[in-house]
Amino acid sequence: MPTKTLGELAEYVGGRVRGDANVQIRSAATLGRAGKGDISFLTNEKYERQLATTRASAVIVGKDTVTTSVPLLIAEDPYYAFMQIMVLLHGHRKHKKVGISSRAMISDSAKVGADCHIHDFATISDGAKVGDGCIIYPCAHIGENVQIGNDCIIYPNVTIYEGCRIGNRVIINANATIGEDGFGFASHNGMHYKIPQIGCVVIEDDVEIGAGCGIERGTLNDTIIGQGSKLGDLVAIGHGTKIGPHCLLVAQVGVAGSTTMGHHCIVGGQAGIVGHIAIGNNVAIGAQAGVINSVGDGKVVLGAPAIDANQGKRAYGMIRYLPEMRQSIRELREQVERLLSVEGQDNNRPEEP
Amino acid sequence: MPTKTLGELAEYVGGRVRGDANVQIRSAATLGRAGKGDISFLTNEKYERQLATTRASAVIVGKDTVTTSVPLLIAEDPYYAFMQIMVLLHGHRKHKKVGISSRAMISDSAKVGADCHIHDFATISDGAKVGDGCIIYPCAHIGENVQIGNDCIIYPNVTIYEGCRIGNRVIINANATIGEDGFGFASHNGMHYKIPQIGCVVIEDDVEIGAGCGIERGTLNDTIIGQGSKLGDLVAIGHGTKIGPHCLLVAQVGVAGSTTMGHHCIVGGQAGIVGHIAIGNNVAIGAQAGVINSVGDGKVVLGAPAIDANQGKRAYGMIRYLPEMRQSIRELREQVERLLSVEGQDNNRPEEP
Amino acid sequence: MPTKTLGELAEYVGGRVRGDANVQIRSAATLGRAGKGDISFLTNEKYERQLATTRASAVIVGKDTVTTSVPLLIAEDPYYAFMQIMVLLHGHRKHKKVGISSRAMISDSAKVGADCHIHDFATISDGAKVGDGCIIYPCAHIGENVQIGNDCIIYPNVTIYEGCRIGNRVIINANATIGEDGFGFASHNGMHYKIPQIGCVVIEDDVEIGAGCGIERGTLNDTIIGQGSKLGDLVAIGHGTKIGPHCLLVAQVGVAGSTTMGHHCIVGGQAGIVGHIAIGNNVAIGAQAGVINSVGDGKVVLGAPAIDANQGKRAYGMIRYLPEMRQSIRELREQVERLLSVEGQDNNRPEEP
Repeated sequence: MPTKTLGELAEYVGGRVRGDANVQIRSAATLGRAGKGDISFLTNEKYERQLATTRASAVIVGKDTVTTSVPLLIAEDPYYAFMQIMVLLHGHRKHKKVGISSRAMISDSAKVGADCHIHDFATISDGAKVGDGCIIYPCAHIGENVQIGNDCIIYPNVTIYEGCRIGNRVIINANATIGEDGFGFASHNGMHYKIPQIGCVVIEDDVEIGAGCGIERGTLNDTIIGQGSKLGDLVAIGHGTKIGPHCLLVAQVGVAGSTTMGHHCIVGGQAGIVGHIAIGNNVAIGAQAGVINSVGDGKVVLGAPAIDANQGKRAYGMIRYLPEMRQSIRELREQVERLLSVEGQDNNRPEEP
Repeated sequence: MPTKTLGELAEYVGGRVRGDANVQIRSAATLGRAGKGDISFLTNEKYERQLATTRASAVIVGKDTVTTSVPLLIAEDPYYAFMQIMVLLHGHRKHKKVGISSRAMISDSAKVGADCHIHDFATISDGAKVGDGCIIYPCAHIGENVQIGNDCIIYPNVTIYEGCRIGNRVIINANATIGEDGFGFASHNGMHYKIPQIGCVVIEDDVEIGAGCGIERGTLNDTIIGQGSKLGDLVAIGHGTKIGPHCLLVAQVGVAGSTTMGHHCIVGGQAGIVGHIAIGNNVAIGAQAGVINSVGDGKVVLGAPAIDANQGKRAYGMIRYLPEMRQSIRELREQVERLLSVEGQDNNRPEEP
Repeated sequence: MPTKTLGELAEYVGGRVRGDANVQIRSAATLGRAGKGDISFLTNEKYERQLATTRASAVIVGKDTVTTSVPLLIAEDPYYAFMQIMVLLHGHRKHKKVGISSRAMISDSAKVGADCHIHDFATISDGAKVGDGCIIYPCAHIGENVQIGNDCIIYPNVTIYEGCRIGNRVIINANATIGEDGFGFASHNGMHYKIPQIGCVVIEDDVEIGAGCGIERGTLNDTIIGQGSKLGDLVAIGHGTKIGPHCLLVAQVGVAGSTTMGHHCIVGGQAGIVGHIAIGNNVAIGAQAGVINSVGDGKVVLGAPAIDANQGKRAYGMIRYLPEMRQSIRELREQVERLLSVEGQDNNRPEEP
């Protein structure tokens, strides 16, 4: 692993140093675990008090107002600087160069580009096309006529159904399924008849799909995961749904069919979005939210049913007060009834003989 | 692909034509994407205004009151007609006839019926029995003594644990797991002891299981997925649970162990159902609902905890008003206290000397 | 299968018999399904009335106050006794002794211990180390430098990414993914940059992982699943999260990154826990709960957002009354306004000439 001085790292990320710029940095670690030679980072104020005790050789921060004796690398966007330094010091996963395994099954009519690594027991079906520099791990299945761009990584046991189109630099994690039939049935006289799903799944450039995800193919239109979007583990995407570019969908999110989502949306874990609605651009959806209506650009929503976050944070947090509210209403009713009966007597008084 | 006239299609589905019955139909498309030669359909009124702009050659509708210049195919059940036409024009997935791959591992004691297609790297264990006309995709694992009926499709990377019984025309999508041990542990002095799970999973005829589902085997009784039921992706079914016939369980639904569900139930995405309860027939459960009590026949429930849908739709929608309700109660309290104190003075007045 | 007398079973589990200690017991079954030769058990009072009709030859119970003519095995912890008897009569899954399949791919630099069974199409990568007595099923993938202890069972299509460490007697069910990259991206100018994830996943002794789970590797620290903990199906664990020993996480639970959980916690199905919080020891979290703040030792919480269970059970159950509460407030407001206006008149009266 390369060693860098803090000054070199600061220069690399366009930040500046407070303290000793000559400390040697070898790797990265959390504030709590870091030791000599480690650089750490502080972006979540929850961990700020760990600055006093960390044994890191340096810490990346966003502002130089923090009080600490540790040398600081001050960067405008400290988490981005942290990412850059992680890539510099540690790099991304190194994949073994296995070439084309003789134990892989590659159809004669499939095309595999240059510098690909196809592992044992991977299957590449008729008419499939794999670009240059792709890595396809054991037991991954590439269906008929699937198209995969350049520099993609398909991890073990991934299944891609026929005809799906995968862009460049796409990463699909283990056990994910791409392009299974949409959940489309016509119910008639108590029976559910399967509707052929003639759309496919299109995954654009620079997308990462989490482990165990399920992305259905469309009934008529394609299901689309937009450029640069990232899906966590166990995410379910319905048929014909379009996720725009640069969205983040955290683990276990579910988006039902025929919904559209704009660009740069963030969807918290376990949130669900119903079908046939439109989510705008730059929308943020809270974890476990239940989105049942279209959401406009830039909105932040949470809760189930999902509402504006400002309102929702207070409102959902008040459910706990329901018992006392109900009790208050009961008491108020009694008091008001008594007041009304007294008032009634008052009103009647003049009529008394 | 075959071409049909609109008149022929109408006859095929038992509907009638409004407009030119001679337009040629080649394929199906959504209203927004359709062009010459495409038939589209309208079953969701959200899309009704697209009738004015669609370039489809014909549209399937349920009533002829809609105003449009497009030729219409009017059918009593337009979505069912759409399904029939999709099957007629496009058909279901065509599976390559690979025969029995020499790269598949089939136990000598396993039996494979006529006209089966077993792909590379599929494994069929001792004593397993696969009926006629089945397709088993790469890396699917059929455990010991598993029984599979006729005309089933087992997609890549599916795992079926030993002894499970699969009916006829069952489809199991990629990466689904059938028959893993139920989540059954006896906790004693702080340790969790695994309980042998001696039930299995029975999947009846015409069931489809979504990608990535997990269906546990039963502790003592079998877990059953009833005839004609369809499960979306990433559905979790607990041990010993019985899903009745012709149910629809949308993606990411979870049903805990030993629960029974009747026939023709519909469970929305991400809904959860606790263990040891009984869901009746024809029950509808909303997306993300949390069902904690038994539900009678024909009920419609939603919310977490799940309540009657009529009540629930209003009730859960009112959570957003909690802050103002609480404020109102506070104000009312002050006002009533003032009124009570005034009344108190009034009441005291006569006592004054 | 061995046959035992009820007396022998009682002695085996340290319980006592009420009724005929000589009845022969061959297997276990539920009260509803049991017949001659079966032992059943009663731990959930829901099923108590089935004691009157069961045809079991004996029933395990926790107290001898129940009225029944069936011979009883009375045990202090009847579910634990039931587990012991299940293991005695039925045993755990028997795995075929396949040895090391020539169709498995085992790297020359991998080490496989004694008495292991490695099935067809399993892949064991460079530098991986598998202990003694392990069973690795078809199409499981063991990544580079993964360490697996003794007596582990890795079911079909499991993927373990490089460098993860698995303890002894660990069971990983089919299609689970261990050690995929954490969902860590630095967002900068609208792009999401992948952060190398240099932690791994550590699974301690006696853990069982459900089918289809996804357990992310840590960004810097390891993700840890503590000794004896059990995860249901389709559970998602975020990067750097630490689950303590002897926890039970039911199906579809999601725990976000960098959260810590103590020992002996129980998390109900579909519950979600946000990142960067601390869950204490012996915490119980209800199904579908949304935990957004740290939870102290011994607490029981439920609901979304999660609150103390005593309060929460009542509070969440009262959402259904929101419409009538809102109506009451409206009525009270009108009544109080009228009272206030009358009071105003009253107050004015003396001023009248």
